[in-house]
Amino acid sequence: MTDASDLADRVREGDLRLHELEAHADHETAAAARRELLEAETDADLDTVGEYAFDAEAAEPNIENMIGGAQVPMGVVGPVPVDGEATNDDHYLPLATSEGALVASVNRGCSAISAAGGATARVLKNGMTRAPVFSVEDVGEAAEVAAWTRENVGALAEAAESTTSHGELTDVTPYVVGDSVFLRFVYDTKDAMGMNMATIATQEAAELVEAETPASLVALSGNLCTDKKPAAINAVEGRGRTVAADVLIPHEQVEDRLKTTADAIAEANTRKNLVGSAKAGSLGFNAHAANVIAASFLALGQDIAQVVEGSNAITTVEAREEGLYASVTIASLEVGTVGGGTKLPTQVEALDVVGVRGGGDPAGSNADALAEVIATAALAGELSLLGALASSHLSSAHEELGR
Amino acid sequence: MTDASDLADRVREGDLRLHELEAHADHETAAAARRELLEAETDADLDTVGEYAFDAEAAEPNIENMIGGAQVPMGVVGPVPVDGEATNDDHYLPLATSEGALVASVNRGCSAISAAGGATARVLKNGMTRAPVFSVEDVGEAAEVAAWTRENVGALAEAAESTTSHGELTDVTPYVVGDSVFLRFVYDTKDAMGMNMATIATQEAAELVEAETPASLVALSGNLCTDKKPAAINAVEGRGRTVAADVLIPHEQVEDRLKTTADAIAEANTRKNLVGSAKAGSLGFNAHAANVIAASFLALGQDIAQVVEGSNAITTVEAREEGLYASVTIASLEVGTVGGGTKLPTQVEALDVVGVRGGGDPAGSNADALAEVIATAALAGELSLLGALASSHLSSAHEELGR
Amino acid sequence: MTDASDLADRVREGDLRLHELEAHADHETAAAARRELLEAETDADLDTVGEYAFDAEAAEPNIENMIGGAQVPMGVVGPVPVDGEATNDDHYLPLATSEGALVASVNRGCSAISAAGGATARVLKNGMTRAPVFSVEDVGEAAEVAAWTRENVGALAEAAESTTSHGELTDVTPYVVGDSVFLRFVYDTKDAMGMNMATIATQEAAELVEAETPASLVALSGNLCTDKKPAAINAVEGRGRTVAADVLIPHEQVEDRLKTTADAIAEANTRKNLVGSAKAGSLGFNAHAANVIAASFLALGQDIAQVVEGSNAITTVEAREEGLYASVTIASLEVGTVGGGTKLPTQVEALDVVGVRGGGDPAGSNADALAEVIATAALAGELSLLGALASSHLSSAHEELGR
Amino acid sequence: MTDASDLADRVREGDLRLHELEAHADHETAAAARRELLEAETDADLDTVGEYAFDAEAAEPNIENMIGGAQVPMGVVGPVPVDGEATNDDHYLPLATSEGALVASVNRGCSAISAAGGATARVLKNGMTRAPVFSVEDVGEAAEVAAWTRENVGALAEAAESTTSHGELTDVTPYVVGDSVFLRFVYDTKDAMGMNMATIATQEAAELVEAETPASLVALSGNLCTDKKPAAINAVEGRGRTVAADVLIPHEQVEDRLKTTADAIAEANTRKNLVGSAKAGSLGFNAHAANVIAASFLALGQDIAQVVEGSNAITTVEAREEGLYASVTIASLEVGTVGGGTKLPTQVEALDVVGVRGGGDPAGSNADALAEVIATAALAGELSLLGALASSHLSSAHEELGR
Repeated sequence: MTDASDLADRVREGDLRLHELEAHADHETAAAARRELLEAETDADLDTVGEYAFDAEAAEPNIENMIGGAQVPMGVVGPVPVDGEATNDDHYLPLATSEGALVASVNRGCSAISAAGGATARVLKNGMTRAPVFSVEDVGEAAEVAAWTRENVGALAEAAESTTSHGELTDVTPYVVGDSVFLRFVYDTKDAMGMNMATIATQEAAELVEAETPASLVALSGNLCTDKKPAAINAVEGRGRTVAADVLIPHEQVEDRLKTTADAIAEANTRKNLVGSAKAGSLGFNAHAANVIAASFLALGQDIAQVVEGSNAITTVEAREEGLYASVTIASLEVGTVGGGTKLPTQVEALDVVGVRGGGDPAGSNADALAEVIATAALAGELSLLGALASSHLSSAHEELGR
Repeated sequence: MTDASDLADRVREGDLRLHELEAHADHETAAAARRELLEAETDADLDTVGEYAFDAEAAEPNIENMIGGAQVPMGVVGPVPVDGEATNDDHYLPLATSEGALVASVNRGCSAISAAGGATARVLKNGMTRAPVFSVEDVGEAAEVAAWTRENVGALAEAAESTTSHGELTDVTPYVVGDSVFLRFVYDTKDAMGMNMATIATQEAAELVEAETPASLVALSGNLCTDKKPAAINAVEGRGRTVAADVLIPHEQVEDRLKTTADAIAEANTRKNLVGSAKAGSLGFNAHAANVIAASFLALGQDIAQVVEGSNAITTVEAREEGLYASVTIASLEVGTVGGGTKLPTQVEALDVVGVRGGGDPAGSNADALAEVIATAALAGELSLLGALASSHLSSAHEELGR
Repeated sequence: MTDASDLADRVREGDLRLHELEAHADHETAAAARRELLEAETDADLDTVGEYAFDAEAAEPNIENMIGGAQVPMGVVGPVPVDGEATNDDHYLPLATSEGALVASVNRGCSAISAAGGATARVLKNGMTRAPVFSVEDVGEAAEVAAWTRENVGALAEAAESTTSHGELTDVTPYVVGDSVFLRFVYDTKDAMGMNMATIATQEAAELVEAETPASLVALSGNLCTDKKPAAINAVEGRGRTVAADVLIPHEQVEDRLKTTADAIAEANTRKNLVGSAKAGSLGFNAHAANVIAASFLALGQDIAQVVEGSNAITTVEAREEGLYASVTIASLEVGTVGGGTKLPTQVEALDVVGVRGGGDPAGSNADALAEVIATAALAGELSLLGALASSHLSSAHEELGR
Repeated sequence: MTDASDLADRVREGDLRLHELEAHADHETAAAARRELLEAETDADLDTVGEYAFDAEAAEPNIENMIGGAQVPMGVVGPVPVDGEATNDDHYLPLATSEGALVASVNRGCSAISAAGGATARVLKNGMTRAPVFSVEDVGEAAEVAAWTRENVGALAEAAESTTSHGELTDVTPYVVGDSVFLRFVYDTKDAMGMNMATIATQEAAELVEAETPASLVALSGNLCTDKKPAAINAVEGRGRTVAADVLIPHEQVEDRLKTTADAIAEANTRKNLVGSAKAGSLGFNAHAANVIAASFLALGQDIAQVVEGSNAITTVEAREEGLYASVTIASLEVGTVGGGTKLPTQVEALDVVGVRGGGDPAGSNADALAEVIATAALAGELSLLGALASSHLSSAHEELGR
């Protein structure tokens, strides 16, 4: 039987290429061989990378040229009551991060929310998008293709949906720039984050466009999707889930839990999150929603590059007579509870902690619930950081808890 | 000796709170107790989360309420020759991701770059920022504070640098909006990503501002930093490293490695990354730089929430007579080789694969080199995806390699 | 009979206020009195301001506190063939400006377009918007109001259209941020630019929203309209007319008329209008579309503050085998041929030069035609300036023709 | 002597071209001939266009192909006390517009400001910019050119300033994107708006760059200036004057003049100008600053296409204990009191009304004062419209005063 050193030798001899090893040995051995090669060619010792706790073969859909696993500490926040549409329960949320103080900070916010009786949360919109770009002869032809598209949404849906058992095409919007036509396809991908589903379905629909119009496909993604880039189109129109959470915290609890006043937090929010972000030319009017989204995405098997879109969030705060009102609205939170990284063992377990693993009943409700929980945790993070800023404790909090 | 079940019981009995366990047991036991509690309160089984390969106590600066570790498969791309200023060598780069096809795709790009003799890379600018917001009485006072700041950069530097042995204050820029004054402090934080260093130093400088001017600190971060939010100020002025990489690939190699032509890739880049992003109101004019940044950040102990800023990247492509010219310029890549998550065991090993662990000589050179390598890999990712799009293979590539 | 000096005296004596004069004298006299007062209180001599050639009383819907008229030189460009949907004819276009070289430059571009047989132009979308903002209790109520809105577009249309004989409500889109609900109403306002029509109609619809839901109106415009502010929502979704024009100019004509090559213009466009604008964090990917829009708006009685939205334009250029392809797509061009400033005498005459004064047949076709003509002139301006830049003649052109 | 009809005939016969007439007759006659030609070729009667009250020959630096003049009604607002740095006086401000209710609205705001004792205003920054784009071989060369630029600001200033007796180069910032290098030159152009001065000076400096580095000039404007396009770089860093005005209005006066409360105005401002603009992906966080800027620009001979940049304004409102605090900060207000349209007769007279015609003493102080006055008027416009919105009177105000 081939062992890792044999495999490594064959690569050194030019007999095999680094990415071909799985064809010649089991996946564990292939990964071990790569570690051996890297250890020989660099100063690295890859022992810990090799101590991964998932099945290498099962991870094949997630990785190529595998050498092992990256490990990041996981903490937990909660329980926090979430009064949503897809869930109405107390939730724990695992967060994986190396940023000291983050979990403690979010947890402090959760405690303030809990003291107020919980957060309200709602998924306001849901649609995964893919926007191919086509070339045409001129703007006359572009106008024709746009008109054809508007009139043939049914046929496009039929084509798109022929590739998927779950996804539904809910909208197609044409955008024209000179001799380029972008068609933004919007799908309900249920409990899947849905990028692959949307891509495959759109490819089929794009073939119909090519067959029925003079348009010629240039790229299956034309960046009006917009995936993994900061883009106003997502901040305005949403992508994945548009989700909001809010809470009204009695003044007494604000002082008790957040060590400051509603007025002070409202002022910090206005000057920092609204005016400061305005002056920065930002699409993110929040304090650090991305921190919560990134840490929960990593723990829960989401696509961490989509933290980019997740950061399109607006935080509002008002000092009302009854207490501190605070909300976070995330325009484009792309989450799923099936597919992708949700099948990795530590992520499976973390999804179970939240209680949203796998397909929901009805379909989509698990991903909705996950969005509601993450929005609530993002709200907790905002409250806590704004509270800390308002009481000038930001860096000292880091000093105590951080590096 | 206290074991996990005892601890868990004491939490259940209200005797201890979840975040206090480390005061009553070793860190492994505390984490085990939390897992036990979560398993009892949810449907989760947390065995794999508990199989982490790092020292729980050593991870204390990175996490609170620890329950274990998140694990993500790690692959490797390269070697790819990087002709930078901080490195001039062939590099492997570990990528941790659950997005199937990503490692293979980046590796295909690396092979095209290698075939062209390697990429050129440069760190064009370097500065970690923190921008507190102060309140003043009116715009008259705001103008005074701004003027005072411009005239007292030396004193501010002295105050700021009193808190750090490595960091240097390189600039302070005042921005005024009505009765809010934002001071954007820029630091050379050497091999550290530097957010904490910048925050602590700025707090000291902010006290000087408060002492010497009528300004009153409202929040130590006023969102003109801008940390973890999409913001034009970062895209325009940079944050962390502004780094670019480019390559000129002979036409023959374009066809051989990327299965398409320079013209087709240039057209895809123009319509998608330039025109499409323009129409989307985007700050990211690239195909998927965030994917490479996210996967390398996770593998190498960087702050994954800062993928948000990393996505402020512009990709350009030209079909030149000699071949395909392609570049990626990342405006705000925040990387470090010391501190934060760089001390976690799997991340230490991955940094050793790149050859940039710890402080560089001269200081800052390791982080510079890391930026140059990541920019090169981002370039590889762009070339590969643009090539795939140009040859209409995007979703079929996913179908073969993906879920 | 009251003369100007009497009136002025009465103002000086505190007997009348400056804005009340029209109640005590004819409009010419009232204006004269104001000039007399200003001349006495400042160093100004207002003789020329008083030499206006319109009827002061007829101008009452346009101005208050009138003192006279501002005069700006008017030139003309064209004729240029426009192959549009609302017009298919040669058009002259008057431009009023004080920027030397502008008319000559646009005319040079028109000559290049003419030499190529004319431009193609299309109105791609048409909708004037108004977006009131309502407050609600929390995100739960916000979700309800959004849902109610989606289900009651018919009733909202009925309410809105009860206020107008021409306008049609074509869409209402709800956007939620925390406890604020924005409803973006979209109208087909035919040949009117339509802001007033949209505002009045929306007020009626807003009352229905208040009557039928718990939402409370905060402001009839909530800035998601977005009127007279640079905003991605307009650049992405359009406002007023979304209109494009393009042309394919044979290489010979490029050299003859523009004194450079298609390749040079394409390179200038890519580096300046695409890459430069990208790096600037811009919503305008063009050279100087605003110049043409501003000058034609002033000449033709449009709202010059809406040049802001007009500048959301993308210019693309390709060096094709057959020649230079160039396009301009203006996302949000707000034009009308009835109402507002279109009734002023010099503007009436200028609209007649274009051939689009008053209501079109069918309704809306005159405003469509105007949009097509302006887009063509903007294209001419882009071609000319890009040509000049490509041949390094920008400032020398200014030196010769300018100040 | 040649009369207009003769000239027109010669154009019809192909003997002369439309733009050549000034070489064959005086400027009045040339314009008359063009009117005659246009009247023959279109349905237009151009009598009123021909009734202009300026000298056609004197207008030559402002227009080509002149046919006459555009006339727009001019009203006046004020007097309003401005406590600025360049002026500390009561000012009237002429506004030319066809938007009914605008002058009345701004005047209402002025009365509120006056009742509060006047506005405070400050020019916070001053710099006209021009940013050429150069091409280089690769990012290595780009880094060299950027470094050379930083080290040779003195030499660049010498070159640039050799072309101007007034302008001073105050800064040059390099920005790199792949193989494009943008150099943003910043000038103090004193009382001139300064675009031409900056362009000519930059051309000279660009020649030095080309002589001393491998960079090759592609376009004298590379859109990082950014002129007449909405761009974050202007909103963040400013262009022309960055100017702010604010006021504190006692509660009694808020109710008396604005018919509402500080709280109601603050709420309208937060939901509309801050949150609404945030959701719209806007760079303009104000109600209608562009209206005031456009109308004053037209009256005062400014470049109306630069209203685009002027709209980069942020309005803030606070309900303080002492009253309503409101501010407007305009990031990029490009004004001048010499050159361009400031020499036209009606504009000369309007500048005299403000008291800022011609060069100031010290140089630049007239343009500074103009910026302070316009900012104050913009503040008045914001107060009035926010007040009207807060009391739900927007469209009814239009109904009464408008069309």
